[in-house]
Amino acid sequence: MRIDHVAIAVNDLKEAARTYSAALNIQNVEYERVESEGVAVAIMHLENGRIELMEPVGDASPIRRFLEKNGPGLHHIALETDDMDGEVDRMESCGMRFLGKVRAGSAGTRVTFIHPKSLHGVLAELCSHPK
Amino acid sequence: MRIDHVAIAVNDLKEAARTYSAALNIQNVEYERVESEGVAVAIMHLENGRIELMEPVGDASPIRRFLEKNGPGLHHIALETDDMDGEVDRMESCGMRFLGKVRAGSAGTRVTFIHPKSLHGVLAELCSHPK
Repeated sequence: MRIDHVAIAVNDLKEAARTYSAALNIQNVEYERVESEGVAVAIMHLENGRIELMEPVGDASPIRRFLEKNGPGLHHIALETDDMDGEVDRMESCGMRFLGKVRAGSAGTRVTFIHPKSLHGVLAELCSHPK
Repeated sequence: MRIDHVAIAVNDLKEAARTYSAALNIQNVEYERVESEGVAVAIMHLENGRIELMEPVGDASPIRRFLEKNGPGLHHIALETDDMDGEVDRMESCGMRFLGKVRAGSAGTRVTFIHPKSLHGVLAELCSHPK
């Protein structure tokens, strides 16, 4: 298992991307819209993983609700596996609860989320990249 | 710059370490006490970084205050650099504010923290490992 990315909820994606790319000394920021999750994302590649900034899109975005409750900040951590279905089975047998089935994420990934109640308050994405 | 670790504040370190090591399928958990930061830590190594669970030690622990305010959950992200002093200078010139000087962390590391106000609500550790 690898740390794939750390996701941060922000109110203003452009402004946050400017701040983070300057702080991290990163020139290339990729922008993406993931309608199914209600977010616009700015992606910054570090040597061994990514920082993803997320701004809510649409009124029903769960990120909007997060921001209203908590303000901007760390939102979730994403863990990458080569064996998504096997890991979901293994984790369920350890008592982990998942938020929804394994589904298509951005850029050909498959994703699901582990419920924060299963991980002491931490929302964790489990993802796999296309081979 | 690399993602060094993701740090999670928990109320019960032993219980959280059991949950996370089962979920992540990790056999070896390292335990450490960092008196200067007021924490006991359980460290789990993934392929490309670490998950660190932190329980407060002592009444003045900043983690205790965090838990009282927010409950358990994601606390900070740590970024590793080979050039600590150069990076601090560069980041300060980008307007980043730091919480305290560069100081000794655990296991020979040098650490400092970027103020959450500089990074849209995210507390970020900057660290370097001994060569």
